Amino acid sequence: MPSIKIGISLGDPGGIGPEVTLKALFSLPHLPKADYVLFGPRPIIEKEINKLDLKKEIPDYDPNISSSPYQITLCDIPYTLGSLKFGYSCKENGEISFACFQKAIEEAKKGALDAVVTAPISKESWKLAGINWAGHTEYLSQDYPDAIMSFFSNNLNVALFTHHISLREALKKIKKRSLSDFFIRLDKFAQKAAKKRFHLLVPGLNPHAGENGLMGKEEITEIKPAILTAKEKEVPISGPFPPDTVFKKAYKDKNKIVASLFHDQGLIAFKIVSFNDGVNVTLGLPFIRTSPDHGTAFDIVGKGTADPTSMFEAIRLAVQFSQSHHLNNSQ
Amino acid sequence: MPSIKIGISLGDPGGIGPEVTLKALFSLPHLPKADYVLFGPRPIIEKEINKLDLKKEIPDYDPNISSSPYQITLCDIPYTLGSLKFGYSCKENGEISFACFQKAIEEAKKGALDAVVTAPISKESWKLAGINWAGHTEYLSQDYPDAIMSFFSNNLNVALFTHHISLREALKKIKKRSLSDFFIRLDKFAQKAAKKRFHLLVPGLNPHAGENGLMGKEEITEIKPAILTAKEKEVPISGPFPPDTVFKKAYKDKNKIVASLFHDQGLIAFKIVSFNDGVNVTLGLPFIRTSPDHGTAFDIVGKGTADPTSMFEAIRLAVQFSQSHHLNNSQ
Repeated sequence: MPSIKIGISLGDPGGIGPEVTLKALFSLPHLPKADYVLFGPRPIIEKEINKLDLKKEIPDYDPNISSSPYQITLCDIPYTLGSLKFGYSCKENGEISFACFQKAIEEAKKGALDAVVTAPISKESWKLAGINWAGHTEYLSQDYPDAIMSFFSNNLNVALFTHHISLREALKKIKKRSLSDFFIRLDKFAQKAAKKRFHLLVPGLNPHAGENGLMGKEEITEIKPAILTAKEKEVPISGPFPPDTVFKKAYKDKNKIVASLFHDQGLIAFKIVSFNDGVNVTLGLPFIRTSPDHGTAFDIVGKGTADPTSMFEAIRLAVQFSQSHHLNNSQ
Repeated sequence: MPSIKIGISLGDPGGIGPEVTLKALFSLPHLPKADYVLFGPRPIIEKEINKLDLKKEIPDYDPNISSSPYQITLCDIPYTLGSLKFGYSCKENGEISFACFQKAIEEAKKGALDAVVTAPISKESWKLAGINWAGHTEYLSQDYPDAIMSFFSNNLNVALFTHHISLREALKKIKKRSLSDFFIRLDKFAQKAAKKRFHLLVPGLNPHAGENGLMGKEEITEIKPAILTAKEKEVPISGPFPPDTVFKKAYKDKNKIVASLFHDQGLIAFKIVSFNDGVNVTLGLPFIRTSPDHGTAFDIVGKGTADPTSMFEAIRLAVQFSQSHHLNNSQ
């Protein structure tokens, strides 16, 4: 079996992306065995290595040389920036982070990478650079509209039926057909990524899951029928459960995913129980894509205090899921 | 200063109410110093005492005798039931639990009690008994329409702007006037109950609190103006914060309350981080009212395995808040 090849895009150079990436790669023990390719401008990366006093050199990435485990190489992303800007959003940093991400995705699409781990970008910087996608997930959604935003940590796994739309709009999308389609895709994609079957738990939309229609009808008219359809397709699924107790049923159970009906239903629970180890996973792509569960953290840039745990977990999970992927593809 | 007087209603006799109440009163150490009056039918209570092998006798409550700390008395609630029914909802149990609750509230309204702790009832039993209120809070709301449903635990405090209505209806109620009124009442009531000022944290309604109107406008049109109005009235308040990160800001901080915009926004966070020690508090009554954060648990009735921690915490918090109340009233 060839070794796992993981691409890592540097993120916004004005944020903590470079710091957490290099710390995760060089200063934490137990980095899983894989061939890592960093996508970023060499001068920025070398400056960060010096700043963190890591005393490491990263050779150039050569796509023609077959990969070997524990190798870290650098795919240099050329840039023309005069001086680096830290701690705020700007056009130049947006251009750089987009170029790193785009190049990594390009390699993954070609099949040269098993997974892409994306360090945090500034959406504002992308906007200033005239980049029309709201973020990584939205960029990927253009080619993979079925992709699902999901979050994994040691304490909880959740997937989101809708994400970056208003709650009012999210309610309108609660329809049995698109819901059952979501459950069926989630089951398929999660199984493919993790090489195991998860049990899906579905929250209701209303307090106490509507209490037999007393407080909202969506459980009766949309959610239950969608669960039934998914069950008929042999998806391991149950619900709808009261939204305020369903997450406890999935808590610390690595074989369950809460199939949340909107962004904050899932993320309120996820973020309060995932202590620095939360990982964002895009399911349903032909490759694995993970990212840490935090932003650019402009307020602590350059202090050397950024915690690389979530980045490390994003890398660890990318390797773990890529191993399943390899197994899937070699079967 | 006279001793604190706490009424405890027995809850549904077919549920775990009697078990957790008697365990909390007799089998846990460090019950706070107070005069406790249990409201329930003597035969039911004595049966439970025998079952739990507690070897205790509870003298009759006499409202004319002035209270003394560490005293536990019983206000007998007459009933005509032939045989007790355990583990499911029924008319007779509904009548009993309602009579216990009503009598305790009556005493509290007269000023004979500082607080009422309510063991869990079955809403279904109340319905079967022809009782028209959905629960304790709804019964109290008829006389105290300004009352606020709130939840306290060692890890998190939340209050709910709306509770037992559908999410669709809850969205319609997000209006600046009623919101600012809620924030101002919450500040006043919580301060009165706890004898300290809390800082109120307000979540947005939409993902990332709307991101400047990109994903929903309510933050701009309703929530921010309401926060501003409350600030003008000198309420210590801030927000709107992204709903998925605001609870972390309040986590383990006993001086903060998250003023949640709807039932599950607050309770998803609260229930996943409150391990058996969650207490439901009705704020804004002339007396304190608390209850454990669980239901009748029909599935484990009679096994002796029910965990009294939440009931104990409900009693502890009722005593603590009553002490502040005493101080308030004697100032």
